Amino acid sequence: MTLLYHADPERGAEWAQLFAERAPEIPFEYRPDAIAPDAVRFLAVWHPPAGMLQRYSNLEVLFSLGAGVDQFDLGDIPQDLPLVRMIEPGIAEGMAEYVSLSVMLLHRHFLDYVGQQRAEVWKLKRFHPSSRLRVGFLGAGMLAQAAIARLWPFGFTLSAWSRSEKTIEGVTCYHGEDGLNAFLPQCDILVCLLPLTPETRGMLNDALFSKLPKGAALINCGRGQHLVHNDLLAALATGQLSRAILDVTEPEPLEPGHPFWRNEKIFLTPHTASMTQPDTAVDAIIDNIRRHRAGKTMVGLVDRNSLY
Amino acid sequence: MTLLYHADPERGAEWAQLFAERAPEIPFEYRPDAIAPDAVRFLAVWHPPAGMLQRYSNLEVLFSLGAGVDQFDLGDIPQDLPLVRMIEPGIAEGMAEYVSLSVMLLHRHFLDYVGQQRAEVWKLKRFHPSSRLRVGFLGAGMLAQAAIARLWPFGFTLSAWSRSEKTIEGVTCYHGEDGLNAFLPQCDILVCLLPLTPETRGMLNDALFSKLPKGAALINCGRGQHLVHNDLLAALATGQLSRAILDVTEPEPLEPGHPFWRNEKIFLTPHTASMTQPDTAVDAIIDNIRRHRAGKTMVGLVDRNSLY
Repeated sequence: MTLLYHADPERGAEWAQLFAERAPEIPFEYRPDAIAPDAVRFLAVWHPPAGMLQRYSNLEVLFSLGAGVDQFDLGDIPQDLPLVRMIEPGIAEGMAEYVSLSVMLLHRHFLDYVGQQRAEVWKLKRFHPSSRLRVGFLGAGMLAQAAIARLWPFGFTLSAWSRSEKTIEGVTCYHGEDGLNAFLPQCDILVCLLPLTPETRGMLNDALFSKLPKGAALINCGRGQHLVHNDLLAALATGQLSRAILDVTEPEPLEPGHPFWRNEKIFLTPHTASMTQPDTAVDAIIDNIRRHRAGKTMVGLVDRNSLY
Repeated sequence: MTLLYHADPERGAEWAQLFAERAPEIPFEYRPDAIAPDAVRFLAVWHPPAGMLQRYSNLEVLFSLGAGVDQFDLGDIPQDLPLVRMIEPGIAEGMAEYVSLSVMLLHRHFLDYVGQQRAEVWKLKRFHPSSRLRVGFLGAGMLAQAAIARLWPFGFTLSAWSRSEKTIEGVTCYHGEDGLNAFLPQCDILVCLLPLTPETRGMLNDALFSKLPKGAALINCGRGQHLVHNDLLAALATGQLSRAILDVTEPEPLEPGHPFWRNEKIFLTPHTASMTQPDTAVDAIIDNIRRHRAGKTMVGLVDRNSLY
């Protein structure tokens, strides 16, 4: 009946303590070698270990430690094994912080000042009231809405685009293909928070960039595969885009010598936008195991047809 | 009866347009050579021009374009010439953005990532829930309260110290000398937003840094003269302080070769934290000129005894 946390052992030790305090009835282990594989009924992972299904043959539920499941090869996971993504408030809070920070970094020219300091230059770049900066979200789901809630009090002009129609208070919402063409020309900063699907792969490309206002900036907190690398480099070279902040790349990390590393207009962060926080993630999994045992539907259960 | 805006001509042209639209009854000029000095009754400046009082002998009010008046040599300004500092919401909004941005920059390790990118390093540094980060404000006036209002929704643990007792909702408030000794040891990030007075000059020194938790960070948005440069360098060298973000220095700009420019633990911005915004500043001055004409007290009139 054990839950095996199969990831970073340092965090695993934190999880163990939280489980002991909060759900002593759920046996917990984070050292794969310390448990008989047959005893593992619940597995929590970022990336499934090789031979997982052969090794853990009594598995009842597979928990993703991340908000998405695109890191899994779904063809290898039996349709009848429930797959649950992580829905816990820490992920959305982390993303809201990252997006707010990145938007303000651009708004207040901080990346220019990093360069200036290195050159011993003290030169004020004027900034304007935040209401003049139009921030648009590609994707209007839980993560975008969390970021919007934090950015809104600063007074930025906010909009969002999603595949199907949505309504978010204080935000101009667009949807569908026609909506995208109306949405893009009014984004001074475009924030990508889309899920990765066959439709969105490679969506951040030259055709999309050309519809943004000249000199717009891009923040990609989606997945590396949303972005066509060469199209970004070309748009930065012509000035069609002024800057890009990328938290995700393909692959991660980028290979040594990749032009993104040294491009002064690109700021790279190492996939840090949101991070599952033990304190809240443990509660989410405890709740789901109790639901599962009671025969109820788990929160975050993946619909294997829609992929997210 | 003219108001002369004696500062940056690019902004002066914006002011001229706003005055024409909003207060056509107040003659406005921003080109000092285009007006007879005797016609100038109101003067708006960052730094008083040399020989100001001789040249503009009919001056009725001197308006500072900044929130402070420490840039003036008050001994040179007659006691009976009303001196008014700028109180307009754009200044506080700018400061709230700058402080929020700087706190999150530290919280989310972005300055580490700037260095990592240059070295082609992709290494995640863990961050914790914002509630674990204790942000303390030196100064609890209008600017600190504006920053607190923006930081609060992110969940940081907030405190503030002021000379005299204050109460701010959601914030642990300390005051006086004893309060300072209780306040400092619980500041992971210390934000200086004090006015510059004889008591606060040089207050950011070794004695103060030694009372902070080991590895604390400093954000100075007050004045350059609050900070003892060598004490900061020493505290960064020992690790007593981990980082400093400085928007102000003494002098500004720093001299070429000053050790702050090249210190990897210091991030310098060119006095950009808050900026008087024409759109709102014009309204503040129009309102004050109308008050003056009606014999009412102007908003921001400086008490020449307390200096702020």
